[in-house]
Amino acid sequence: MTFPAKTPQPPYYAVIFPSQRNDGEDGAYSQMADRMVELATEQPGFLGIDSARGDDGFGITVSYWQSLEAISAWRQNGEHLEAQRLGRADWYRAFSLHIARVERSYDGP
Amino acid sequence: MTFPAKTPQPPYYAVIFPSQRNDGEDGAYSQMADRMVELATEQPGFLGIDSARGDDGFGITVSYWQSLEAISAWRQNGEHLEAQRLGRADWYRAFSLHIARVERSYDGP
Repeated sequence: MTFPAKTPQPPYYAVIFPSQRNDGEDGAYSQMADRMVELATEQPGFLGIDSARGDDGFGITVSYWQSLEAISAWRQNGEHLEAQRLGRADWYRAFSLHIARVERSYDGP
Repeated sequence: MTFPAKTPQPPYYAVIFPSQRNDGEDGAYSQMADRMVELATEQPGFLGIDSARGDDGFGITVSYWQSLEAISAWRQNGEHLEAQRLGRADWYRAFSLHIARVERSYDGP
C-alpha cells in the first residue's frame, strides 16, 4: 500500500475518523487495527486508506469509497461491528466520524 | 483546542491533507505548522482542525470549514501561500489534498 492513497477523479466519498486512544495495552489494538485495514481493502467500493497516529495517542484514519452504499455495507460488516464495539468499550477515549463527498482532489509536490 | 474537533451539524466542508515528510530538520517545520494552525483558526468560516503525525513522518491534517468560499480564501492567504511553497519545495515528499462536503457526522464513545 502506498501513502498518501491514490484516489480516482472525484466525486468519491471519504470517512474521516479522528480518535484519541485510551492509555493501555497496544498489542491487541494494533492487531485489530491492521486487520481492519486488511478487511476494508477487500470490500466492494474501497478506494484507499490513509492513517497516522502520534505518540500522544491521537490519530486520524481516512478511508476512501466509491459510494455511500459501499460505506454503509462496510459499517455493517460483522467483524467490523465487533471492532467498533471494542473501540467504544475499550480503545478510544473520544472519536468523531465525518462522512463526506470529495468534490476536488490534488496531489503534490 | 480540543481533539477531536467539535464540529456543527452538517453540511460543512473538510480539507483532508495527508502528507509524507522529507527526512531532515524538524524545528522550522514544527514552528510553521503551529503557526498555520494558529492562523487558520483566525480565518472567517474556520470550524476546527484535527492533526496527527506518526514517527514514520506520515501525517494527516483535516480542517473543517463553513463553505468552499472560506476554503478558497484560506488557500489564498499570503502567509499560507508561503508555507505551501516551502511544503512543496522542502518539507513534503508527497501529499494529497481532498476537498469534501461533510454530509453526516457522529461523536463517540
